[in-house]
Amino acid sequence: MKLIKFSSTFVSMKKTAIIVAGGAGVRMGSAVPKQFLLLHKVPVLMHTLEAFYSFDREINIILVLPDHHRSTWEALCRQYRFRIPHQLVQGGNTRFHSVKNGMERADDEGLIAIHDGVRPLVSQETLRRCFLTAAEKGSAVPVINPSESLRKVDDGESIPVDRSEYRLVQTPQVFRAAAIREAYRQEYNPAFTDDATVAEGWGIKIYLVEGNTENIKITSPLDMRIAGHIMKNWHTG
Amino acid sequence: MKLIKFSSTFVSMKKTAIIVAGGAGVRMGSAVPKQFLLLHKVPVLMHTLEAFYSFDREINIILVLPDHHRSTWEALCRQYRFRIPHQLVQGGNTRFHSVKNGMERADDEGLIAIHDGVRPLVSQETLRRCFLTAAEKGSAVPVINPSESLRKVDDGESIPVDRSEYRLVQTPQVFRAAAIREAYRQEYNPAFTDDATVAEGWGIKIYLVEGNTENIKITSPLDMRIAGHIMKNWHTG
Repeated sequence: MKLIKFSSTFVSMKKTAIIVAGGAGVRMGSAVPKQFLLLHKVPVLMHTLEAFYSFDREINIILVLPDHHRSTWEALCRQYRFRIPHQLVQGGNTRFHSVKNGMERADDEGLIAIHDGVRPLVSQETLRRCFLTAAEKGSAVPVINPSESLRKVDDGESIPVDRSEYRLVQTPQVFRAAAIREAYRQEYNPAFTDDATVAEGWGIKIYLVEGNTENIKITSPLDMRIAGHIMKNWHTG
Repeated sequence: MKLIKFSSTFVSMKKTAIIVAGGAGVRMGSAVPKQFLLLHKVPVLMHTLEAFYSFDREINIILVLPDHHRSTWEALCRQYRFRIPHQLVQGGNTRFHSVKNGMERADDEGLIAIHDGVRPLVSQETLRRCFLTAAEKGSAVPVINPSESLRKVDDGESIPVDRSEYRLVQTPQVFRAAAIREAYRQEYNPAFTDDATVAEGWGIKIYLVEGNTENIKITSPLDMRIAGHIMKNWHTG
């Protein structure tokens, strides 16, 4: 009966999602930032928030947006009658500073997930694995296996490495709230490439869980088309 | 005028493409091996051969197929009136042995490209970069940058690594014919994960060139849908 006891504790655990949507969309060759582009007729970012809301209707969603995108987002929410409750927080100069701003509005209890706004295709199973593992072990980072051979480059030379020893890292990266809030009080370090590296900088051990391959980060027009296709497939069959 | 002189030598250089289509399609959850699945109404493998034929009408295409797929392929060629000239060679027990069988039918002159049959989306630009660099330097391996953070796992622990130091490896891997034919006469070593590692085992230095992100290896139903979408986009847009 361990599972049932654990699950009921887990269900009642406070959950926060900090969704970071700081990108200016420069790489997309588009005037519209990528999180606002339409995917299956709805802005990317709305799908992202919906994934977390579907997972837990009580989740505290904190959306971190650059100040100059705030009015666009608010207009889109009205236009699309977007009703998922969330707080808006102003972005910082780097991803670290954006997440840090979000942390200030998060609870000190339960679990905090940090997620890229441009990953609308995170599955409910990935969310479940991440939150469950973080509840049990303190952290959870979703990863997938590289599907190609890997080489390491160094000063013009390259060597083959064993791809079975590597993982590609996705989000949400989920942590116990009190610990990750402390971690984000550290001084900024350029080696902080994601939340896991910030957590490790504060001594938090990282646990990997299986992600879902569809959970791509939309950074190019090709990604946008792929995401559209995946989503269409999810909705039709 | 160096460029023009170089180009005219390059154009007249003998070129061989060994296309390896050994997979049994087990991972696809489909009775039809993945290279025979229809993409934009034509079997995947026909698109792959066409990419090389479009690049150079004089190219010597050697298709390596498991013996039990030979009759299927021949029937498909009749059905689709597939007219691109190619030789059929029997596959071996491993990719290494399949390529080795192909090598026996290749010329000792010019350049040899080795390519996965399930990569129909290699671009003409990638082919050009690969053959040009191999002509000049002796080898060319197309790579792309990982778009996600990377971690290295070891005995249950994982550490972050700098993704800017890593490349994801694609095909075609192109080499000077005489050298790569010699390399494939080495004894088989399980560390041979691709043609570059076989070449390095024989002392050939590897040069990396830029691949194209669309050039995915089709190994799952999701890959198949993505490939279909990319191809549709190429043909209509």
